[in-house]
Amino acid sequence: MTENVTVAIDAMGGDHGPVVTVPAALKCLARDPGLTVVLVGLSEQIETQLRIHRVKSHPRLRIQHATEVVGMDDSPALAMRNKKDSSMRVSINLVKKAEADACVSAGNTGALMATARFVLKMLPGIERPAIASELPTIKGRTIMLDLGANVDCTPQHLLQFGIMGAILVAALDGCDAPSVGLLNIGEEEIKGNEIVKQAADLLRQSGLNFYGNIEGDDIYKGTTDVVVCDGFVGNVALKTSEGLAKMVSTMLREEFNRNGLTKLAGLIALPVLRAFKKRVDPRRYNGATLLGLRSIVVKSHGGADRFSFENAIERAVREVRNEVQQRITEKIALLQKDAA
Amino acid sequence: MTENVTVAIDAMGGDHGPVVTVPAALKCLARDPGLTVVLVGLSEQIETQLRIHRVKSHPRLRIQHATEVVGMDDSPALAMRNKKDSSMRVSINLVKKAEADACVSAGNTGALMATARFVLKMLPGIERPAIASELPTIKGRTIMLDLGANVDCTPQHLLQFGIMGAILVAALDGCDAPSVGLLNIGEEEIKGNEIVKQAADLLRQSGLNFYGNIEGDDIYKGTTDVVVCDGFVGNVALKTSEGLAKMVSTMLREEFNRNGLTKLAGLIALPVLRAFKKRVDPRRYNGATLLGLRSIVVKSHGGADRFSFENAIERAVREVRNEVQQRITEKIALLQKDAA
Repeated sequence: MTENVTVAIDAMGGDHGPVVTVPAALKCLARDPGLTVVLVGLSEQIETQLRIHRVKSHPRLRIQHATEVVGMDDSPALAMRNKKDSSMRVSINLVKKAEADACVSAGNTGALMATARFVLKMLPGIERPAIASELPTIKGRTIMLDLGANVDCTPQHLLQFGIMGAILVAALDGCDAPSVGLLNIGEEEIKGNEIVKQAADLLRQSGLNFYGNIEGDDIYKGTTDVVVCDGFVGNVALKTSEGLAKMVSTMLREEFNRNGLTKLAGLIALPVLRAFKKRVDPRRYNGATLLGLRSIVVKSHGGADRFSFENAIERAVREVRNEVQQRITEKIALLQKDAA
Repeated sequence: MTENVTVAIDAMGGDHGPVVTVPAALKCLARDPGLTVVLVGLSEQIETQLRIHRVKSHPRLRIQHATEVVGMDDSPALAMRNKKDSSMRVSINLVKKAEADACVSAGNTGALMATARFVLKMLPGIERPAIASELPTIKGRTIMLDLGANVDCTPQHLLQFGIMGAILVAALDGCDAPSVGLLNIGEEEIKGNEIVKQAADLLRQSGLNFYGNIEGDDIYKGTTDVVVCDGFVGNVALKTSEGLAKMVSTMLREEFNRNGLTKLAGLIALPVLRAFKKRVDPRRYNGATLLGLRSIVVKSHGGADRFSFENAIERAVREVRNEVQQRITEKIALLQKDAA
């Protein structure tokens, strides 16, 4: 597992830019002797960060200067058209030119998706990238997609998400036939809209290990290895979870801070609360894969801190080493052939 | 606030039937001197429960015998057609005949909706009932709708949800112009589907205090007093929240049960954990309103326990006393007139 991997890192992306991306890259380099990193962006700012972390040079790190930065609020279309020397675009170019095996960015999701799609192109038969991410469950973890790339999905899109998600899980976890669930609602009378019904039919005939319809609570129950939904529903479910998690932790903190006695109880319970927090820490799950492209692009949360961004880098490395891209490409090609 | 209110209770509904509904009704009767209750269902079973709770008779309680029970898995259409003497149907009939001001059931949601719609009819201009429920937020609480009645919504439906939700909050909380948020996703490029975009336009012109688009995390932040979405998205968001909450509490319990030391910490932290649990206890928020009908129908969670079912009864009482139904009827009539 120490196969050599080169990752292009959009050093300017995200809310914190090089302050986060550079030390995260250094940490990963120190841990992984097979990793080479290209830090892409304003070289002065990158060098400043390297100096702060007392790194003059590193045999497996190089800087690729890029003069522009895509802002978090830039329109994706404009970013793509007008910022051809952005750290994001240049990172993706490195993958295109096979100078890097994968690229990681915490930048503007829309711009990243549009640019990656334009530069790297989609796999034949896949129309749009899907955003796939790991989520913790009671049993372990699950992969959910799409988390916001596609608001209006056809049944065929949902089928493709199922296929790509299953391959991703199979490649990363080494499990043979990951179970795939289709996110739906439970009322008997209504049982989902037409698109979801048709998608269920397609998934049933797909040869995948299709579990059937699942409901929202099945995500965290870990009922299936893969959760398939359209990007609107997926994004709402993900953000709703973030909001609820934040509310829970805020309220827990408030209750433990109520008075001297509760503070003492909090102090005593601290190691337990920390262990709990570690288990559900969203930073451990940072790094969403843009599936369906011809190369690996990992999107980090924009607000990622160092630890969080390290996980996104490691996710990209894992995907390269587990040949996720080849497997998806082969499988999709096979399906195309079957369909022809 | 002790105005007389009569509530018809589907005593057979839910996973537990009279074992839960009868003692919950007795608790509410004891607390609220203005409340009269009609327990509808198999009179023998209801009487058994009354005996268990040592109640021979009560001046504000009567039993209405009904020979059939709608099962949780019954098809709504068949339940409506074939079970005309079900506890659910008879409860709704009592409201129709003005022998009760509202009805509460923990039974099959689809059947309840279909029957209520058939017997009570919709308000003019409203096509389907929406399921509205309160959720806790960091700031207090919010009303979200639709939570599963309508999978495919038009922009007009979403507008109607906004109007009904705002009136509900105004009536219950006495606030003048509750803020209304439209659930959407955040990516700049995509910003929701066409229906949501059009709904935003309608809401903007509606005269409501329309906040604009909100994202999933805004629900629990309490960004707006009302959250509007279609029933598919709302149901997924709600169930996802339930799943996450369950995972969090399971993991917390596991961490506190890890060893002797953590168990001791848990014992010390117990009062704080209890206070926390109380704040987010979903049982306190039990009782979803079916909005858009000509009378008040409250749906309790099927798995409700006694405490939980009490909250559903009290919700119905609060809505009657705050004239929610009249207010919605008047407002909708006004809008119809304006539109004509």
